[in-house]
Amino acid sequence: MIELPQPTAVLDAAVRLQGIVNQTPIHTSRTLDAQSGQHIFLKCENFQRVGAFKFRGAYNAVSQLSEAQKAAGVVTHSSGNHAQGLALAAQLLGVKATIVMPEDSPQIKKAATAGYGATIVTCPAIEREVVCRELIAEHGYTLIHPYDNPHIIAGAGTAARELLQAVGPLDLLLAPIGGGGLLSGTALAAAAVQPNCQVIGVEPAIANDAQQSWQTGQIVRLTAVPPTLADGLRTRYVGEHNLPILRQHVADILTVTEAEIVAALQFLWTRLKLVVEPSSAVALAPLLTGQIRQKGQRVGVILSGGNVDVAGLGALFTN
Amino acid sequence: MIELPQPTAVLDAAVRLQGIVNQTPIHTSRTLDAQSGQHIFLKCENFQRVGAFKFRGAYNAVSQLSEAQKAAGVVTHSSGNHAQGLALAAQLLGVKATIVMPEDSPQIKKAATAGYGATIVTCPAIEREVVCRELIAEHGYTLIHPYDNPHIIAGAGTAARELLQAVGPLDLLLAPIGGGGLLSGTALAAAAVQPNCQVIGVEPAIANDAQQSWQTGQIVRLTAVPPTLADGLRTRYVGEHNLPILRQHVADILTVTEAEIVAALQFLWTRLKLVVEPSSAVALAPLLTGQIRQKGQRVGVILSGGNVDVAGLGALFTN
Repeated sequence: MIELPQPTAVLDAAVRLQGIVNQTPIHTSRTLDAQSGQHIFLKCENFQRVGAFKFRGAYNAVSQLSEAQKAAGVVTHSSGNHAQGLALAAQLLGVKATIVMPEDSPQIKKAATAGYGATIVTCPAIEREVVCRELIAEHGYTLIHPYDNPHIIAGAGTAARELLQAVGPLDLLLAPIGGGGLLSGTALAAAAVQPNCQVIGVEPAIANDAQQSWQTGQIVRLTAVPPTLADGLRTRYVGEHNLPILRQHVADILTVTEAEIVAALQFLWTRLKLVVEPSSAVALAPLLTGQIRQKGQRVGVILSGGNVDVAGLGALFTN
Repeated sequence: MIELPQPTAVLDAAVRLQGIVNQTPIHTSRTLDAQSGQHIFLKCENFQRVGAFKFRGAYNAVSQLSEAQKAAGVVTHSSGNHAQGLALAAQLLGVKATIVMPEDSPQIKKAATAGYGATIVTCPAIEREVVCRELIAEHGYTLIHPYDNPHIIAGAGTAARELLQAVGPLDLLLAPIGGGGLLSGTALAAAAVQPNCQVIGVEPAIANDAQQSWQTGQIVRLTAVPPTLADGLRTRYVGEHNLPILRQHVADILTVTEAEIVAALQFLWTRLKLVVEPSSAVALAPLLTGQIRQKGQRVGVILSGGNVDVAGLGALFTN
């Protein structure tokens, strides 16, 4: 039986992260409100340290390790924002971090993670988990899973807590869902601060395992990595800690098409002047497509991060 | 003898613009401070209405017209941010705006300006000023010049005033210079609020007419439109209202290369997650190149706007 984080864990995490994380800005836009028919508050985690919300959970997790665990070091497998978030959290806490990355990861991601003082171990993508286990067996490292970890969940939820505390009552709160760390944390934050606020997850339609899992109550595993543009949401299944929280606290999980993701991304970049990653656009998209029928609501959106290939994505935009 | 705006004109403009303009956010960055060796405050006018500081001056100018002038309408020639700024200002004040644009202006710019209710008149680029004069003669419109106008200057200065009031004493304040509206307004703001703050203009090296004009005291006119990437700074000469203010209140005018502009733009987009235009990168660039030798200073930078061709510029970035 796993132990699930309670809503109050988000409040405890917020105390732990005070003065460490950026209290990121909240943007509003007349243009966005006019286009969506809602009153929208964007929580800009693209301005978070390492460029994504992931730093919140990583710091919350590493800071709660025992002295012996800290002395031994931490490990994870990731080529994305979690790698950088864990690397920086460990560096700030004086803990050795080892990150297992696929050998074909972009050089820029390896360099960014190494820049925070982490040791990078590369291997064929398929062997990542095995290599991770070997390192744990050999060195006694503690695995900090990117999403299936109660402290990662509680830390991720602090972004929503800041938003809810800053802007007051919201009718809806939207967050993207990949493995479920951000969405389950967001749902716990709402449960702790504003239980009447509905929390909704948004997922790429071609990666809708979380929607299926949430509907059925069983973790649905995709057989291949889904080829969505939203690289932060290419996880094949949600975590064991995440699903029960989603089932209890999340009102709905919506899906959006790849074209809708590109359109929302273009809107965020060109109209709102925010460099965000496609995963962030996923969360905003249902407000631009008309999927959310009831208008005039106060809606929060967690923009998850901003680490992107500007040229590659910009080339997809329409005139 | 022209009448120059005094430093207090910026304070008067700020009262006029209260509740109308966005009080734009001020961003700081550990990464930027570490890289530059300074403590930098970025005034993010890319988040201003119409996506650029230009709205400030336009609203300040149109709101001070006589009732007869308002009834007749305003006109300008611009294909850039001033066109959109004037169009929105006029719309908000119930004044008819006519914008003369080169017939080869991008459709997206015509549409954006028309979207704010302005009438677009197109003509060959070379005939813009003639067409403008004809419209004034025929309809009695008032010309709102993009920079050579005391109310435009005072309005533009309100961005710097907000910054200086928000962050306290600064050693340096940097702004880009094209025609001189933003820089002269910025210099007046500093003179009004913090006379000890040095104001420095930054210009593309291949468009250094303002530097020459500032050095010699005579308006130097380029014979052709300079082909700088910073499209907001392609003006051929500074204004008659602008130069005397620059001479009196600006400590230096620096230049940066096109490669330095691209590097600063890439830093702003990919590290700071801010969609800004190349003109904004011009102002930041001297802090990244080491041109400003004295380290440890508190430095303000006016990021002028964020209306850009994302794909076209992103393609220039290096890995």
